[in-house]
Amino acid sequence: MQLPEKVSIREVGPRDGLQNEDPVATADKVRLLDALSGTGLRRIEAVSFVHPKAIPQMADADQVWAAAKPNPDVRYSALVPNLRGARRALEAGFREIEVVVSASDTHNRRNINRSTEESLDDLAELIAALHDGGASAEVIVATTFGCPYEGDVDPARVAGIVDRVLADGADRVAFGDTTGMATPRRVIDVVDRVRGAHPDVPLLLHFHNTRGAALANILTALQLGVTEFDASVGGLGGCPYAPGASGNVATEEVVHMLHDMGVDTGVDLSALIDVAREAERIVGRELPSGVLRAGPRVPGLG
Amino acid sequence: MQLPEKVSIREVGPRDGLQNEDPVATADKVRLLDALSGTGLRRIEAVSFVHPKAIPQMADADQVWAAAKPNPDVRYSALVPNLRGARRALEAGFREIEVVVSASDTHNRRNINRSTEESLDDLAELIAALHDGGASAEVIVATTFGCPYEGDVDPARVAGIVDRVLADGADRVAFGDTTGMATPRRVIDVVDRVRGAHPDVPLLLHFHNTRGAALANILTALQLGVTEFDASVGGLGGCPYAPGASGNVATEEVVHMLHDMGVDTGVDLSALIDVAREAERIVGRELPSGVLRAGPRVPGLG
Repeated sequence: MQLPEKVSIREVGPRDGLQNEDPVATADKVRLLDALSGTGLRRIEAVSFVHPKAIPQMADADQVWAAAKPNPDVRYSALVPNLRGARRALEAGFREIEVVVSASDTHNRRNINRSTEESLDDLAELIAALHDGGASAEVIVATTFGCPYEGDVDPARVAGIVDRVLADGADRVAFGDTTGMATPRRVIDVVDRVRGAHPDVPLLLHFHNTRGAALANILTALQLGVTEFDASVGGLGGCPYAPGASGNVATEEVVHMLHDMGVDTGVDLSALIDVAREAERIVGRELPSGVLRAGPRVPGLG
Repeated sequence: MQLPEKVSIREVGPRDGLQNEDPVATADKVRLLDALSGTGLRRIEAVSFVHPKAIPQMADADQVWAAAKPNPDVRYSALVPNLRGARRALEAGFREIEVVVSASDTHNRRNINRSTEESLDDLAELIAALHDGGASAEVIVATTFGCPYEGDVDPARVAGIVDRVLADGADRVAFGDTTGMATPRRVIDVVDRVRGAHPDVPLLLHFHNTRGAALANILTALQLGVTEFDASVGGLGGCPYAPGASGNVATEEVVHMLHDMGVDTGVDLSALIDVAREAERIVGRELPSGVLRAGPRVPGLG
């Protein structure tokens, strides 16, 4: 089995994770962020700059970021939904910024009352604004591997969106398995197609463990040469279907499997598990992470 | 990605699953068994014939099997720990019988107060008795991918056990990931070694999802040409570490991933999910199956 030597994990617990949990105190968010910054993770999605009425969980994004102690060895990013959010993110000092569009028209409309096509027009403007502000722009394509409303999503549609956003200047693309509909077959379909058209564009995958296949999907992507993945400490971020069920794949489960396979992540697994325990305390519920529950398969997996 | 066209799943919920849950009523066991027999599954581990004081959950094995309505298209098996159990299983009419030995000496001693070597001597006698009774003998090698007491288990040790039991007449071998310590790397190590020495021996893998890697491990094994897997409806069988955590990989998660990848299992996924719901009712706790919670990624996955 051919695998990359190194993988770059972007920790999304502080943003994507906490955004999908009941609101927690600003001080807890800062503590989580700072703790993650000391685990060896080299990329962290810190906050999103969204309207506080739409997403009260992120209403204190400016305060969280102002209070955090960034580690100079970590790349921090923020997610923004629009120009107003982009201005806030730039003012806060972020230089890696993510924007989102859904590959499924229905999903995009239900989320923001715009068609995918209309959102792509907005993104072109947004990408330009981010570049003007000195930031890079990553476009996250949500529902890449399936849509809870439309079902299967044609990889050709995903590839078309990639063509468009790259033409509009996007620096990187990410593919979100928004409701855990990916399987290895879907991963191969999308990655082969996008890589075929754009072999050199940085590409990141974001899996949910909703149906148990997150690590199988990551293993598949590794075999295709993908080296960038999102993951959420403890599996923070819940699930759209049921309390207790899995949403974001847990960072420690990803790191655990990769380390046992000899793939370097730079992460101190033991320190990460400590942070997952703290995350569990912060949200006040049991998080869906097997490695948090059971510990590493052997001590000292690094 | 090269995958087999067909996979044979052995459902272990009625035995391995229920044996690791709080005891349930005989009638519920029979209902579960009969319901599974109607899902298209072609192999079911029905009961074990063990001492009722050691494992009260299986004290009514004879009654369960006598009351069940076997489907002629399904192969049923039973697990036995010793000659006494073997006689009971043969008398009950089983012709596919499993016996267990642990690759880890410490694990074997803690379970049955015998060394692995002593157990192998017992197995030789047991295999002969099963053959005399007209049954086939499958040897399950527990802790193949790691031991909670000893840590890593040398694949050479596993291979040595396989050599021995095959020399003693075993018809098939199975490898148990007893506490969920397998990763794709461990799967490759063991399967390559055993297949290299015994290319034609039927080989089955039994994974736990304790650390989230069960489907990644199955995907790895599929790529190595393995076509036989255990799985437990709903993920019945709990976990040695914590209530609510995962033990046996859930059958519907395996079937779900395989069907979306075009691998045939013969199982009616929708019927299987109905049985998982019934299993949840029987044990009275939420089972750790994402596909049970969230449903298939699209309707009609078969």
